[in-house]
Amino acid sequence: MHPAPPLSPTPRSTVRRGARRARTDRAELYAVLDAGLVGHLGVVLGDAPVVLPTGYGRRGDTLYLHGSTGAASLRAAAAGAPVCFTVTHVDGIVYARSAFHHLMNYRCAVVHGVARPVTDPAERLLGLEVLTEHLAPGSWTATRRPDRRELAATALLTLDLTEASVKVRTGPPGDDERDLTAPVWAGVLPLRTVVGEPDSDPLLPPGTPVPARVRDRVL
Amino acid sequence: MHPAPPLSPTPRSTVRRGARRARTDRAELYAVLDAGLVGHLGVVLGDAPVVLPTGYGRRGDTLYLHGSTGAASLRAAAAGAPVCFTVTHVDGIVYARSAFHHLMNYRCAVVHGVARPVTDPAERLLGLEVLTEHLAPGSWTATRRPDRRELAATALLTLDLTEASVKVRTGPPGDDERDLTAPVWAGVLPLRTVVGEPDSDPLLPPGTPVPARVRDRVL
Repeated sequence: MHPAPPLSPTPRSTVRRGARRARTDRAELYAVLDAGLVGHLGVVLGDAPVVLPTGYGRRGDTLYLHGSTGAASLRAAAAGAPVCFTVTHVDGIVYARSAFHHLMNYRCAVVHGVARPVTDPAERLLGLEVLTEHLAPGSWTATRRPDRRELAATALLTLDLTEASVKVRTGPPGDDERDLTAPVWAGVLPLRTVVGEPDSDPLLPPGTPVPARVRDRVL
Repeated sequence: MHPAPPLSPTPRSTVRRGARRARTDRAELYAVLDAGLVGHLGVVLGDAPVVLPTGYGRRGDTLYLHGSTGAASLRAAAAGAPVCFTVTHVDGIVYARSAFHHLMNYRCAVVHGVARPVTDPAERLLGLEVLTEHLAPGSWTATRRPDRRELAATALLTLDLTEASVKVRTGPPGDDERDLTAPVWAGVLPLRTVVGEPDSDPLLPPGTPVPARVRDRVL
């Protein structure tokens, strides 16, 4: 096993603004991607960008993206248009002593590249397993697998994690020295995503138990 | 007062996939935007899209976007490049009886247009107030206002809510009839964002109380 290579910045994946927040450890890229459920896929249609929420899953250095075969942006991506795929977590609201220094704590991964449509049947099945398990761990084995018609109706793309950047902002506000004596509270209001009580499908037979893969799910 | 006009779809803001999930009430657009903290701004740089998380605030039918004056994507947007700005909330994980019907419940607003840099000093101050109050209600009056240098260091853009679409998915899974008798749990695992305990800046004098604007914040 070779260790995963660090993130090697290209001109467009070099973090220029707030460079002190850039991370170059590939494990941090994986962590940000693995902690998300939805990313934002950017594609150019005509001369304008289109940004749409997109489900994904990761296997090694490959991202699987999917959507309907009818979506124009996925069709463009499948045809070789450059894409940008971004996953962001907002971890806190940073209250400062000045309006200017208010901001968010966040983790953000940005991947640039050209996506590739997955056509091989075995790889399509693998990709759908990766996507399903990312969204709903345990569901691939617990539920009916896709049939031929469903497989055909799914646009499945891969995007390599070759050109990517990660930016992380943590910690207290960065107020100016001149403001530190102001009688104003400053600090961070942490945010997190939590799961609520599972809401059973009304079509289920009454008393159907909630399985552990759902009941014990933690984000 | 005229009532707000409905969302009038243009070709690119017409929801084609999952059209039953499209909403045309402008109040729903406002609700999705107002409930978010960060959007994803897409801009074309060279021939490739760049998608970056971006803070924003809304006033009527105007979105204010901001970032550093050094960010290439904001510079391109300020120079008149077409943009796409997308705000997404993931509201739940939909567990189905088949892998194919797994998906997310979500609310998503997509705005297309050309952004305009805000140069008028009074409007710049107004825009920063809108942005600050969106991120941290009450902070504009409680903290030091931006000075001339800080105002100059902020790229502030507006984007009109003229061309926008809203898509909302709610409710239980849409399983195939053939799967309804399968002995598999199905339903929704709701997700929500919650605030944690405020984390005071270590540089504050000990005992500084957390103000109500932070302590009582609900998302």
